This record gives sequence, C-alpha cells and structure tokens, in this order.
Amino acid sequence: MTRSKNLHFADQLIARVRELGHPLCVGLDPHLGEIPPVFAKGDMAPTSEATAKAVEEFLFAVLDRAAGRVAVVKPQIAFFEQLGHRGIETLTRVVDRARSLDLLVILDAKRGDIGSTADGYARAYLEPGSPIEVDAITLNPYLGLDSLEPFAARAEAHARGLFVLVKTSNPGSGDLQNLELSDAPVFGSVASALAPMAQRLAGKETGWSSLGVVVGATYPGEAQLVRERLPKALFLVPGYGTQGGNAPDAVRGFVRGPNGLEGGVVNSSRGVLFPEAGDTAQAPAWEQAIDAALDRAIDELGEAVAKG
Amino acid sequence: MTRSKNLHFADQLIARVRELGHPLCVGLDPHLGEIPPVFAKGDMAPTSEATAKAVEEFLFAVLDRAAGRVAVVKPQIAFFEQLGHRGIETLTRVVDRARSLDLLVILDAKRGDIGSTADGYARAYLEPGSPIEVDAITLNPYLGLDSLEPFAARAEAHARGLFVLVKTSNPGSGDLQNLELSDAPVFGSVASALAPMAQRLAGKETGWSSLGVVVGATYPGEAQLVRERLPKALFLVPGYGTQGGNAPDAVRGFVRGPNGLEGGVVNSSRGVLFPEAGDTAQAPAWEQAIDAALDRAIDELGEAVAKG
Repeated sequence: MTRSKNLHFADQLIARVRELGHPLCVGLDPHLGEIPPVFAKGDMAPTSEATAKAVEEFLFAVLDRAAGRVAVVKPQIAFFEQLGHRGIETLTRVVDRARSLDLLVILDAKRGDIGSTADGYARAYLEPGSPIEVDAITLNPYLGLDSLEPFAARAEAHARGLFVLVKTSNPGSGDLQNLELSDAPVFGSVASALAPMAQRLAGKETGWSSLGVVVGATYPGEAQLVRERLPKALFLVPGYGTQGGNAPDAVRGFVRGPNGLEGGVVNSSRGVLFPEAGDTAQAPAWEQAIDAALDRAIDELGEAVAKG
Repeated sequence: MTRSKNLHFADQLIARVRELGHPLCVGLDPHLGEIPPVFAKGDMAPTSEATAKAVEEFLFAVLDRAAGRVAVVKPQIAFFEQLGHRGIETLTRVVDRARSLDLLVILDAKRGDIGSTADGYARAYLEPGSPIEVDAITLNPYLGLDSLEPFAARAEAHARGLFVLVKTSNPGSGDLQNLELSDAPVFGSVASALAPMAQRLAGKETGWSSLGVVVGATYPGEAQLVRERLPKALFLVPGYGTQGGNAPDAVRGFVRGPNGLEGGVVNSSRGVLFPEAGDTAQAPAWEQAIDAALDRAIDELGEAVAKG
C-alpha cells in the first residue's frame, strides 16, 4: 500500500478499502479521562504540557497499531482544541505521523462559515503546505452551498475529500435534519442539493466522488434515502459500536462493488481506542487490547461487506 | 465600565450597550493580505512565527483603540486556525488582552457536534481556566438540541453566552435555512426550538437571555420573524457594512428599551479593521483611519437605535 499524494481522494480511499477488505476508519478521540494509565502523565490538566505529550504518545501508539491494517483515521479536533495551542501542536504531529504511515486522514472538524471565513478554514486544512494538512475534512451545510464552495475548490485543485453532514448519528439529529418539507425531510433535501458538487468531484478510476457525506449508522433507513439521491458520494458512517449501530446497519448505504459492498468508511473511535478488556495498566496488555478491538471491528465490518 | 466576572452574560452585555449608547461589536478577522504594512512582517506565510506575531501586534493595536468605546469584540477563529498552533497561541493572547481591557469576547467558532464532542468544545472555551476562556461562543444548530446542551449547561453554570446560527448573512444562506416547512421556513423552526433554552438562560436584571441567535443584517424581514419567536434572545448581527446591510436594517430585530432600541449587537469586521481611507503605511495614519472607522460605525448604529 503506497501513498500517492496526488491521487484523487475517493479513488485512493476506495482502492485501499478494496485491498484491505473492510471499511474500518479509526477515530482518534482522545478523551482525557480514558487515556490508559501507561500513557497518562500528572493530573492531566487541559492546559499542561504534560497532558498534550500524553495524548501524543497515546495516539502515536494507536497509529502504530492501525498502520497497514486500516485505510484511514479520523482525528476529532475538539479533543485537541480543549488543550489549547499545545493540543493543536499535538494534532499537527499526529496528522503528520499518520500520513507518514500511509494512513489517509479525515479531520473531523465540522466547519462551516460564510465565504471569506470558509476560505480561511479551507486554507488551514486543505492547502498543500498548510500548518495542518489533511486528506479530507468534515463540513456542516447549515450555511448553504456557497459556504462549501471554498472547500470544493481546494478538493478539486489538490485532490482532497469533503464529508458534508447530512444525517448525524446522535439522538437529537432529527430536531432539524428530519423536519418535513413538502417532498422530503431536510436531510434528503441537503443530499439532493449536493448532487452537482458530487458529480464535479467524481473520480476517474472508480467513479466514486470526493464529495462525501456523513450518515450515522444509527439511521440505516435514512442512509438508503441518501444513497438514492447521491449514488456515488462516499459515506463516512459514525455511530457504529459504542453508539449502538451494528455492522450490517453501518453499511446499509453501501452498494455492490468488485469485492463486496463498498462506498465509504465506517468509523469506530471509543470501541478501538478504549477497549474495556483486560488490565490496560501495562503496555503489553494495552497493546493486546487495542489489537483485539481492531481485529473485532475489522472482522465484523469485513463480514458485513462480504455478505451484504 | 468595570468587568464583573460572574455577572450574567446578557445582563452584562445589555448594561454596557446601554451605557455606551450603541450596539457595535468589533469583529477581529485578521485577513493576512490586508494587515497594514506597518504591522506586516516578512512574506506573511501562514506557518511562520513572524506572521503570528504580526497578527498579534495588529490586533493588540486594534483592541487598544476599541477599549472603552465598544462593549464587545468577536474574534473569528478561522483566521487563527489558518496559522496552525501559533495562531491559536495568538488567539489566546488576543482574548486575554481583550478581557483585561474590559471588553466582552464572543468567539466566532460556529461549533456543533454530538454530545461527548460538544462537551470537548464547551470545555475548550466556556470553562473557567480553560486554555481559551471567552464570554460567549457561536454555535451551529444542524445537529439538534442535544448538541447544544453541553454549551447551555456551561452557560448556566459559568454565566456565559451562546449565539446559535439561525439566519446567516451570506447569499446562499437560504439554501437550507429558507426551505419551507408546512408552517414556517427552517430558520423559523430553529428559532422556535430554541425558545425553552432561551427562557432557561434569561437574565434577572434585564430579562434578556444569554441564549442568543445569529441573524444577518442582510435579511431584516427574517430578523422580525425570529424576534417574534424569541422575544428575549440577544441578536448577534453580522453582515452590516461591507456585506451590504445598513444600520437601520441591522437593528430591525431590536426592540424598545430604556434608551432606544436594544436586544443585541451588530458586528463590523472589515469595515473597522481595514478602512480604505488614507495612507495606512504610517502608524499615526493607520490609527486615525481606525478611529474614524470606529466613529462612523458608532455614529450610524447609535443613531439607528436612538431613532428606531
């Protein structure tokens, strides 16, 4: 598996997922209170340098275990922001490390703002040579299509990927996303509005689009509606595992490809990073627990796409 | 004007606006290409330390001019994020400086995520002793009410303010926000859904709520609809000035108070930070230009609330 920096994002992601036989994405959500004792340092106060260092060492160790076994990782920027500028420095190093290990990186930032500000965010994360350069980013559509355009322009120019929130995995997601319009719920209308952008960012090799969408594993029915409206948009599926979505539900929006179901990635954060099994106070026990959690998720999802 | 750290956010903001006689909020959007030559350093590359330093010196100078003349400033975090961890360090210092000058700080971050992640963001910005401690933050409602709850809990516990995006100022804002439900547009439904939270965060002195909303000056009709549904929510109004909204439009959602119209703040970023008048290469000319831009906005908005 060799990284091609200029390959179309969706083509690259799909090629790797086909190679590995499963769509697992490892979410990097370093909840301070759950970092294994072997990595934790001092009182883990959010402003201390020691805490940022502990997060970095923990995530580097996770990346070492994930490298070669998954196609992609998804750092959640909130957990780095809560450590202030030191957390952002840590995020920078985690992203660089992941990419050096041939892992694709989706930054889970859910950004969304008006034109000139969206341009600032796009420049921060999708521009070659930017301080934190990632392969893809998650975006919020509430501000409308013009707010997504600066990201789409970068995605096109620099082979990056975008995942726009359509139907999120949380219990309250319906408050706004499922409001009923005359012909569809709001999230369905968002999906339809994204169709031209999806077409514009389609890959030449696989046909899959670098304009992806976020659709929670907890709402498999909704996933099918979104897939009808966006037949070639990559899905980033949160909510598998700890949040309650099972593997078959998580791949409900996938479609038949050469090696089984395909069309996106399924994220697991807590389930992989903080497995409950065993005494994790010792490094070998901790490593075994993470490996076992990775095996379990890979097997479950691999089976779901092979069978489906 | 003396800062009371534990005073209810809306009560405090309204008291200061009444005292000053105008609702101007100065937006801190340091567009790299527009920073006056007297502050710019080197090639202003986003990753260089010199750039972060230039942004800091520029904004410190702006804060010195704004102190005592406006109640509140609004740093836009995207422009700091694009400088990586050094930008976040700069933001930390800018926020601390503003608060030490008795300016309230609204962080324009438009965050929104599911429960445990929203908690991370809330801890990052609204918790006493957090790395970047601000008085209020802007939020995106697309993920539903449960995604706002961790922020509401902090607002209640630590006297902070929230401004939820309802109707934004950009041309594409209608793509989603104005989709028509059976009884109202989406943004109207969002406003209604926020009513219980607004009531919960109401201030004892003025009755104004620390659960505020963002409503663009470019859509005065929509502002009136939002005000009907949220009679005591503070308005944060972007889009005044450079984006095309005039002063009377900007205060269209305000209501009669003891000293004229009140009920929110009107933001100007570019219009104050980057006035076109004069030769800004020299420090005194630059200071005069900023002072004049501040005077102009203060006069216009002061007149609009006095007349209205």
